[in-house]
Amino acid sequence: MGAVGQLIANLDVEDTGRALHQQIRDLYPLCRSITGEGLRETLRWIQRSIPLEVREVATGTQVLDWTVPREWSIRDAYIADAAGNRVVDFKRHNLHVVNYSAPISARMSLDELRPHLYTLPDRPGWIPYRTSYYDESWGFCLSHNQLLALPDGEYDVCIDSTLADGHLSYGEYVIAGESAEEILVSTHVCHPSLANDNLSGTVVATRLAELLSRDRHRYTFRFLFIPGTIGSITWLALNKPLLGNIRHGLVLAGAGDAGPLSYKRSRRGNAGIDRAVEHVLRQRGNEYLIRDFEPYGYDERQYCSPGFNLPVGNVSRTPFGQYPEYHTSADDPDFVKADALADSLAFCLEILHVLESNGRHFNLMPEGEPQLGRRGLYGPIGGATEARTFQMAMLWALNLSDGSHSLLDIAERAGMPFGVIYDAAEALTEHGLLKPLPPDQDA
Amino acid sequence: MGAVGQLIANLDVEDTGRALHQQIRDLYPLCRSITGEGLRETLRWIQRSIPLEVREVATGTQVLDWTVPREWSIRDAYIADAAGNRVVDFKRHNLHVVNYSAPISARMSLDELRPHLYTLPDRPGWIPYRTSYYDESWGFCLSHNQLLALPDGEYDVCIDSTLADGHLSYGEYVIAGESAEEILVSTHVCHPSLANDNLSGTVVATRLAELLSRDRHRYTFRFLFIPGTIGSITWLALNKPLLGNIRHGLVLAGAGDAGPLSYKRSRRGNAGIDRAVEHVLRQRGNEYLIRDFEPYGYDERQYCSPGFNLPVGNVSRTPFGQYPEYHTSADDPDFVKADALADSLAFCLEILHVLESNGRHFNLMPEGEPQLGRRGLYGPIGGATEARTFQMAMLWALNLSDGSHSLLDIAERAGMPFGVIYDAAEALTEHGLLKPLPPDQDA
Amino acid sequence: MGAVGQLIANLDVEDTGRALHQQIRDLYPLCRSITGEGLRETLRWIQRSIPLEVREVATGTQVLDWTVPREWSIRDAYIADAAGNRVVDFKRHNLHVVNYSAPISARMSLDELRPHLYTLPDRPGWIPYRTSYYDESWGFCLSHNQLLALPDGEYDVCIDSTLADGHLSYGEYVIAGESAEEILVSTHVCHPSLANDNLSGTVVATRLAELLSRDRHRYTFRFLFIPGTIGSITWLALNKPLLGNIRHGLVLAGAGDAGPLSYKRSRRGNAGIDRAVEHVLRQRGNEYLIRDFEPYGYDERQYCSPGFNLPVGNVSRTPFGQYPEYHTSADDPDFVKADALADSLAFCLEILHVLESNGRHFNLMPEGEPQLGRRGLYGPIGGATEARTFQMAMLWALNLSDGSHSLLDIAERAGMPFGVIYDAAEALTEHGLLKPLPPDQDA
Repeated sequence: MGAVGQLIANLDVEDTGRALHQQIRDLYPLCRSITGEGLRETLRWIQRSIPLEVREVATGTQVLDWTVPREWSIRDAYIADAAGNRVVDFKRHNLHVVNYSAPISARMSLDELRPHLYTLPDRPGWIPYRTSYYDESWGFCLSHNQLLALPDGEYDVCIDSTLADGHLSYGEYVIAGESAEEILVSTHVCHPSLANDNLSGTVVATRLAELLSRDRHRYTFRFLFIPGTIGSITWLALNKPLLGNIRHGLVLAGAGDAGPLSYKRSRRGNAGIDRAVEHVLRQRGNEYLIRDFEPYGYDERQYCSPGFNLPVGNVSRTPFGQYPEYHTSADDPDFVKADALADSLAFCLEILHVLESNGRHFNLMPEGEPQLGRRGLYGPIGGATEARTFQMAMLWALNLSDGSHSLLDIAERAGMPFGVIYDAAEALTEHGLLKPLPPDQDA
Repeated sequence: MGAVGQLIANLDVEDTGRALHQQIRDLYPLCRSITGEGLRETLRWIQRSIPLEVREVATGTQVLDWTVPREWSIRDAYIADAAGNRVVDFKRHNLHVVNYSAPISARMSLDELRPHLYTLPDRPGWIPYRTSYYDESWGFCLSHNQLLALPDGEYDVCIDSTLADGHLSYGEYVIAGESAEEILVSTHVCHPSLANDNLSGTVVATRLAELLSRDRHRYTFRFLFIPGTIGSITWLALNKPLLGNIRHGLVLAGAGDAGPLSYKRSRRGNAGIDRAVEHVLRQRGNEYLIRDFEPYGYDERQYCSPGFNLPVGNVSRTPFGQYPEYHTSADDPDFVKADALADSLAFCLEILHVLESNGRHFNLMPEGEPQLGRRGLYGPIGGATEARTFQMAMLWALNLSDGSHSLLDIAERAGMPFGVIYDAAEALTEHGLLKPLPPDQDA
Repeated sequence: MGAVGQLIANLDVEDTGRALHQQIRDLYPLCRSITGEGLRETLRWIQRSIPLEVREVATGTQVLDWTVPREWSIRDAYIADAAGNRVVDFKRHNLHVVNYSAPISARMSLDELRPHLYTLPDRPGWIPYRTSYYDESWGFCLSHNQLLALPDGEYDVCIDSTLADGHLSYGEYVIAGESAEEILVSTHVCHPSLANDNLSGTVVATRLAELLSRDRHRYTFRFLFIPGTIGSITWLALNKPLLGNIRHGLVLAGAGDAGPLSYKRSRRGNAGIDRAVEHVLRQRGNEYLIRDFEPYGYDERQYCSPGFNLPVGNVSRTPFGQYPEYHTSADDPDFVKADALADSLAFCLEILHVLESNGRHFNLMPEGEPQLGRRGLYGPIGGATEARTFQMAMLWALNLSDGSHSLLDIAERAGMPFGVIYDAAEALTEHGLLKPLPPDQDA
């Protein structure tokens, strides 16, 4: 069944889900951003599981059309009333400060302060998440209820932050395979206390990398743990010679909510990764959503820009922005579910199983059907359902193994799960009825 | 927004509709046919608005498989009872005489007369419209009620007409553009007192030509005001060297009834004109009908014959023959609506805007997304819906401007109106992010 | 209308259905198998209608991956109780013995016998049909009620059969046509007392061959009456040089039940045969079923194996296995219907009419429409519905006869029956407006 198939068979879904959920709780308090110590601490946490290489790219480095920004450090931030009470306090929730806020220390009236305050009037108990990466400014996020409770008067406003030359950090882990051709898995790690977006991606990708590192595979796997947008742009800018090796890729994000799995196609729309993911989704039998590519979303925006046009899709559960908790304090560890995390991991493994095991075969006995019975491959009178399914899978594999159909093509044509067709092809190969063809670009 | 976009923005729908409707009332009484004075008078009326060239082609001229027929003149026609009362009178309604009737002057019984009388038993109050262009005969059309009221007896039958060598007349108006490549707009002008079919086409096409004549455009526009079938066949026969220039074409007819807009595809089925019209219809948000080509209908039959196969579709509201008033006295000026006329005109302009403004671009910053914020192209925190739509349009234009997608392709792929994508591409071009490619055959 | 069109017009559906049904009753009692006398007797019966050539292929002959098996002869078979009463008796129903059972003569307890007994607990009154062609064993089939009535005790078990070197028999009939290119019709004749599967195929194919033999046709027709699987494998193995001539093919089976017609596409999926059959099904206006190819079913499995990939589909009524009577004693002559048999025959003729008469034409007057009226091809004022349909068919044939559309393409595009388009093209050809092109591979 292949090494990835074995990982799927051995996966303890319940234990795994519980462990991933606990990891999210552990990582949740860190104040991550697109640069800085919170991000570095998260990368160090990943290094406990896999030998991640941490790259540091200096402020001011030109990366494609962008420039690596100054590094942001935040120590404290609050709004205090005249009595000195902190009415908004970064130490209570790191979403309270607009991410990448410039430092400020001033006394001002509530009216002067108001343009710097962000709330969600429709969700009066939640704190929104706001950033101001490329536009130097400052601000606070608070619940609408908090805002309504603020009396007029003077407030002390303090953001003890620094924007200074430093580095942008990201993590990279490569599992060398039999081939130099790569499967890319990319996930953003720049969000502060937000669980589904994107600690779910962090912990699922880390576990996926750890599992894959146990065996040697056909493909080389490259895992990227990067700050959103500027991270993928930086990596692309610095790794152009590598890009020709990327055969398939996934951006993994929002992998822990209770919604059904969703897939956003690569810009190519019918790349191998698109076909593999859609096949797995269809065959799983659960509710799912497939969306066409659009140039908005996660880092697939960059990988799929027209100058690169990499075959990279996006795996999520509920798509970003389509759940009210998105980018608010309600995206907390309770919002993500252990079973959803484990299911997302299993789903990724199933996709990788298709990519790893797909290929074309030649039927060595293509004229008429070979006599399966003589070879012990045909069930006895009245065989069980499973045996009949396996026989159908063998007949399909024989009938379509004319050198122009991959196992995935055959599985799709037969309406059967890839794994069954793969196992049938293995059995036929053992009996000398099929011969695998060398891997090629499109299989 | 381009010259045609400006015409759309400036169009006063209400005034225009009223004016077009009045023009139909003015033209309604003329007794047009495929040749003759009624036709010439209609062409002269068009010349009041645009410098139409009137062509005269002599009887007997061979045109493709056909021959230009003798010219028909009609002065009077009636059926009178024994007492001399005109019971059917051409002077009361020019549909009463079968169009192209040969002259007759005779006394006969009602029974002898009957084979020459046409009525609509299902619509007993309406007069049908009948012609006998290529089969010399004569006849009268009357309401079924009129027929039932005729007592037996002798009748004086008179058609004071002439079929004599003369000319077939048609009008042609060319608005020279930057390119020799042409957009053809053809409408038939041969029907007597019938409002929707086709005075609606006459007045909408005239106004469209007048509006377009105010500016210089990318394409050359050619307007034809011709008698149906024989007119397009004559024009095609005499203008074969020009046909290679026709890039897009519309037959405009039945443009004034209250029904939704409809489009009949060109024979090619997926020509630029087909894609442009269908995009506009989809994006307008109103009910509409798209029909596949069939070799029956208006003059697109000739333009789309296999030896020419021009990319010409047909714009109508309710398709011909699908409303009971079609080809009867009930297709009178009250049957057409001012707002429908103006809407048909606006629709034509919207189609022409797509054709005029469509084109391909190269993204000059194709690796990753360019940093729009730095260029002032990215909205502030919490931008308005319209700003976000414009940003999405820019992202789409950037992502798909790889030289193989036209703006129409991008609009279709994005599910956004052509105009929004066009405006986004203009903004990106101004900021040096896109570069227009030279126009080509398929854009 | 062509020779096959004439056969359709002349077919007396009621008489034919009655005759075919009677033939099934006549053939029903024979105990056919994949070899042996029952099969030979059936082939001799066919020879009464058509000059069928009977081929005999010796046991042990290698045919593709298979070997022609020993010949099976069965004289008697029964289970008798201690009192000598035959409680299961082959002479009462030939389904009682597992087809191809090895000989046995023994006394044994009911418990020892049980593993050799096959019943249908869900259909306790029916006898199942079981075979054991390639796995030497023996067994009895009986109704579940019979089994339940058997008391414990000793039974005499006897199968008086022989498995000995001999021959595999099949029948072949070729009707030479104008071209060496062939249409193959294949039907299996190996089932014992089972009416729909497949005496219906036997009698319909025989009648079809007899009807076609009356005229000379464009194609050569080859009819095969063969034992399932091993018969088609044998024929394919022995006739490889012929296979390149097969342009179209049908496996005919299950042609007599009351269900709607169904068609299983060839492996190619869009071969000429697939398009022809689907057109006829759509135009007939009755319920029907079209199924994609799958590598399971009747002898199309062999014809469509990847080394041959012949354009062969399968015509049935209710697909095999989808009716409860399938492969049981309930598939008796009452299960098949006279009108269904005649309808299946008519359907085959309609398919063959398309294949025989299809072709491409050139419009000799392709610029504009030719003036049909001048040639008497255009109806008078107010023509009847049929005349208008014929006119539309002429317009379609003219418009699409550009050398790239076959008559079937035109019929499909027009949504009209093939026969009407064919007749229109004939009329246009007679008037010098169309010119037939030489037949080619794809028309």
